[in-house]
Amino acid sequence: MSTLGSAQRAQVVVDTSESRHARLRALPPGHVRLADGFWEPRRRINREETLPSQYEHIEATGRLDNFRRASGKVDVPFRGLYFNDSDVYKWLEAASWSLATDPDPGLERMVESAITEIADAQRPDGYLNTYFTFERAHERWTDFDLHEMYCAGHLIQAAVAHFRATGTRRLLDVAVRFANHICDRFGPEEQGKQPAIDGHEEIEMALVELFRATGERRYLEQAEFFVDARGHGLLGEPYGRFDPSYSQDHKPFREQDEVVGHAVRALYLYSGAADLHAETGEPDLLEALERLWRNMTTKRMYVSGGLGSRHEGEAFGEDYELPSGRAYAETCAAIASVMWNWRMLMISGDARYADLMEHTLYNAVLPGVSLDGRHYFYQNPLADDGTHRRRSWFGCACCPPNVARLLASLPGYFYGVSDDTMWVHLYAEGSATGNLGDRAVRLAQHTDYPRDGNVEIEVEGGGDFGLMLRVPSWCERGYTVEVNGEAVDSPLSSGSYAEIRRTWRTGDTVRLKLPTPVRFVECHPYVAENAGRVALMRGPLLYCVEQTDQPGLDPRDLVVPVGPEPSVRFEPGLLGGVTALTVRAEVVTPQPAWENRLYRTANAHPDDRRAETVELKAVPYYAWANREPGAMWVWLQSR
Amino acid sequence: MSTLGSAQRAQVVVDTSESRHARLRALPPGHVRLADGFWEPRRRINREETLPSQYEHIEATGRLDNFRRASGKVDVPFRGLYFNDSDVYKWLEAASWSLATDPDPGLERMVESAITEIADAQRPDGYLNTYFTFERAHERWTDFDLHEMYCAGHLIQAAVAHFRATGTRRLLDVAVRFANHICDRFGPEEQGKQPAIDGHEEIEMALVELFRATGERRYLEQAEFFVDARGHGLLGEPYGRFDPSYSQDHKPFREQDEVVGHAVRALYLYSGAADLHAETGEPDLLEALERLWRNMTTKRMYVSGGLGSRHEGEAFGEDYELPSGRAYAETCAAIASVMWNWRMLMISGDARYADLMEHTLYNAVLPGVSLDGRHYFYQNPLADDGTHRRRSWFGCACCPPNVARLLASLPGYFYGVSDDTMWVHLYAEGSATGNLGDRAVRLAQHTDYPRDGNVEIEVEGGGDFGLMLRVPSWCERGYTVEVNGEAVDSPLSSGSYAEIRRTWRTGDTVRLKLPTPVRFVECHPYVAENAGRVALMRGPLLYCVEQTDQPGLDPRDLVVPVGPEPSVRFEPGLLGGVTALTVRAEVVTPQPAWENRLYRTANAHPDDRRAETVELKAVPYYAWANREPGAMWVWLQSR
Repeated sequence: MSTLGSAQRAQVVVDTSESRHARLRALPPGHVRLADGFWEPRRRINREETLPSQYEHIEATGRLDNFRRASGKVDVPFRGLYFNDSDVYKWLEAASWSLATDPDPGLERMVESAITEIADAQRPDGYLNTYFTFERAHERWTDFDLHEMYCAGHLIQAAVAHFRATGTRRLLDVAVRFANHICDRFGPEEQGKQPAIDGHEEIEMALVELFRATGERRYLEQAEFFVDARGHGLLGEPYGRFDPSYSQDHKPFREQDEVVGHAVRALYLYSGAADLHAETGEPDLLEALERLWRNMTTKRMYVSGGLGSRHEGEAFGEDYELPSGRAYAETCAAIASVMWNWRMLMISGDARYADLMEHTLYNAVLPGVSLDGRHYFYQNPLADDGTHRRRSWFGCACCPPNVARLLASLPGYFYGVSDDTMWVHLYAEGSATGNLGDRAVRLAQHTDYPRDGNVEIEVEGGGDFGLMLRVPSWCERGYTVEVNGEAVDSPLSSGSYAEIRRTWRTGDTVRLKLPTPVRFVECHPYVAENAGRVALMRGPLLYCVEQTDQPGLDPRDLVVPVGPEPSVRFEPGLLGGVTALTVRAEVVTPQPAWENRLYRTANAHPDDRRAETVELKAVPYYAWANREPGAMWVWLQSR
Repeated sequence: MSTLGSAQRAQVVVDTSESRHARLRALPPGHVRLADGFWEPRRRINREETLPSQYEHIEATGRLDNFRRASGKVDVPFRGLYFNDSDVYKWLEAASWSLATDPDPGLERMVESAITEIADAQRPDGYLNTYFTFERAHERWTDFDLHEMYCAGHLIQAAVAHFRATGTRRLLDVAVRFANHICDRFGPEEQGKQPAIDGHEEIEMALVELFRATGERRYLEQAEFFVDARGHGLLGEPYGRFDPSYSQDHKPFREQDEVVGHAVRALYLYSGAADLHAETGEPDLLEALERLWRNMTTKRMYVSGGLGSRHEGEAFGEDYELPSGRAYAETCAAIASVMWNWRMLMISGDARYADLMEHTLYNAVLPGVSLDGRHYFYQNPLADDGTHRRRSWFGCACCPPNVARLLASLPGYFYGVSDDTMWVHLYAEGSATGNLGDRAVRLAQHTDYPRDGNVEIEVEGGGDFGLMLRVPSWCERGYTVEVNGEAVDSPLSSGSYAEIRRTWRTGDTVRLKLPTPVRFVECHPYVAENAGRVALMRGPLLYCVEQTDQPGLDPRDLVVPVGPEPSVRFEPGLLGGVTALTVRAEVVTPQPAWENRLYRTANAHPDDRRAETVELKAVPYYAWANREPGAMWVWLQSR
């Protein structure tokens, strides 16, 4: 247990408190209280519905029995996919973070019971994977596309979360033993080790966090080895039909400049590399990350923030390849994007990462789970004919517990701290306490965000310090910041932090006003299928049109003129309470000449499309597919 | 050998000479001579380059060794995919048809040698599949997604072709033994047999042809059993991630109304069902086929005639799901479409099937093979950035020998015969001899088609009979037909056959004039990414724009106004001789404001796109990617 001698217990999701090259530190979820009408109800459902029902699925689908089988407690066949262990670990991570903010003896019993099954299944040498047991034990570490390190990474993340949230080391001990097994075995040839990397990245960021939790430098070095070893052909081509870019193994990480391959793998790698940079400060790493971020956000990202254009390989597409109906946009990829942007934000304090994190949370992560907290999307298309519906579970169930762990830890993403400065990244009614040196500062936030953009922040605890308030990039004009009713004279700009540095007194109040007009958003003309179309946004929220709100209309026939301001109305009874938009549109149906034909000579037919004007109702995209099945459309024809 | 007692030897690709419910019969490839400047040079390359080089690939990749291994001649491991036998069979079918029109002792030796290897590998019980030998022999017929019947079907097709082309029964005997093995084993439970179907359709049409070649009714009944047995869950769900629609097993064939799943599987099934209808005349079968054809051609077909919108599952997409850059449009699917349309044409004599057959041959099959006859496309996108290039072979090498067998048998698709009528389906310089009853009629066709649309047909052999000349649907106006210089008074319409019925004398000459203006083709507005775009066509040919012809221009920036007639010039030295188009276009580049961004609020930026006028060169799509790599675009922005 000597490796735990210097174990830390910063109760945060990504602990940069000792990271020399990170500008910001996170606040523990337990030091942040969300009391808002948007996120907190979703978090309550996460605790009351999602976590218990997921535990039932995990039990019912044999995922826990796989551990019991490995420890000899039951004599049943292995069930499910070779990486099913990871779902248990992600659920444990989710439950741990939930316990950090909302103690729950029932949930705690489930957690402890799952940990017991896991601990009992560990081999004496530290190895732990229930698929590679008994008849498959001889196949351990023979095929690095079978997710052994990926599962190990999720075990480590769960263990770190459990340790940070509860202060107990039971699961951490298990993770440390497995991590040691991996560190002993894999590494540079010159150290007498086996050079290897995992097909599915994940362990890289887990090892950096294990280093942060335990103080053991070997885990950081191991993470660095795994990042550095990519792109040197170690994986060979074990992926069946996929080429090395599928696993970002096509070139060394520091040379990569386009986001390619399996989106979740890619984004987990980038998260791990960002963690590594926070510790080492190596400029090449950061430059590669910035290049990749630029390529992703300017060429390969859906308007929702969703990532991954292809079903084939669950992969990023080429530049500007962003089909709406066939968008893959896996929920896990959106979560991974939040993870990566969070790390980039901590490193840099650059508001563009917070912007994208917010945008992704509202519009790409949240659609992944139903309002009842018991149904999930794996893919998140931006147009649908009504057949794509959330399901209660999946054979490959990576997304459900991934959503759960993000919602459970969500308060930790709202605020940040640097030397003598409190940062407000996200807005929601509630409060937060941060430590600036040895002084605690409490901020009380009053707002209806995202229903409107007025935010009031009340300071408790005086003294000289800075306050950084994000002016979101979605708010393009008309924003103001006042302190105690007086305009702040520091320059403000959209997509940056407004810095207010002064001697504060308890009761000082900052008012941020962010106008929230409806925005007609257009897409780069190289995205062929979005040409001549608009998407609707208001505040941080992307909107969509659902068939159920406009019976008898085909969304494909709607043409929305840019200009007339849609009317805006909060409907408390609709979809858990949403601000709905009413948009004027024309209904333009294809000419009768198009009936039963797909192609024709242009201009050979008179243009007799008829147009009538209707009022369309648009609802937030995150809430789609929570009513009766029907078509959904984000990009509307425009003129 | 009693099953061969009544063996027929009509030298045609699909023999409907005795089919009671087919209106037309084919002419043997050997009775048709192509002497044109378009197809015959391709067929010569097929004989001189494609067939010999494919034999080398088949040998070099162990496909023949797999047979030698199965017969105990060599002691090597099985190589390649579990359905590699089928490539040998398809090559044999191609070579057989080539021998029917162009005897070649060298090719004949290769054929005989391959047949020896195949015959020697057959098991005593008739079973023949080199993958399921030795260590895998016990897995025979355990997983119907492993293409055992698919391979059997290709063996049968090759054997029928070889028998028809050469008159020898060596390969036919092998196929009959395997077919008997299958008929003995699989069928209705009430006959004490195992109800089963293959995951990959193919054997259905093969068995109907085997019935036609041998007169043995059991093969027809077996084909009917396989068609009828689909959609009753016999396959279970052995497809990993795919659902039953992947193999058209989602509902009984007669209830199907949308083309779904793996496109080649689907189209082979439809071909088999059409063959079945030609024999049985069952109306329900034909109605299902017509429904499927309508759905395919009006909702799910590329402007090239290519089929299959999804890489995932090599599958048809939803209605109007037709991405250009990510088109799958497998070469095999286009070939299968020709096969299906050919059968529908034989059943009905309806010109729309001949129209689509012609369109698909020029624009979807032909792009699948390079001008040098040694490189192949598997996927045929309609837009590309220059990275998609033909390859000399594939691990899954279904497409190359499929192209070869179609080109080898191509003359057989040009003409047809019904009771007292000769039909001209396709146009090319050459001649054909058909038997009307006991009278031979010879037609000499003089034309530069598709370079222009003037066709002269000279009749040899007098008497009363009809002549049906197709007026292609691509020719929308201005077409005329004259006999001996006098206008024909029968009503003419585009997309139908002009019927000329008279007492002919040798030397009578029919002149068909088909104007070939350049057509700007637009797409149904529900295909989102083609909205506001046009494709260029002239005569039967689809055009594209290649980067190499317009250095320095980005095809994505081109806007082609509909209206000004492009200039047309035949360039003998370009791409084997093509008619190139010169099209006026505007270059409209994205506003500078789009740099480094993917989305923005509409109308917030001034519209400062600059436009200059250029001349674009367009070349036939079938010839793309035969020069230096560069972007290619079919659908151009328009206004």
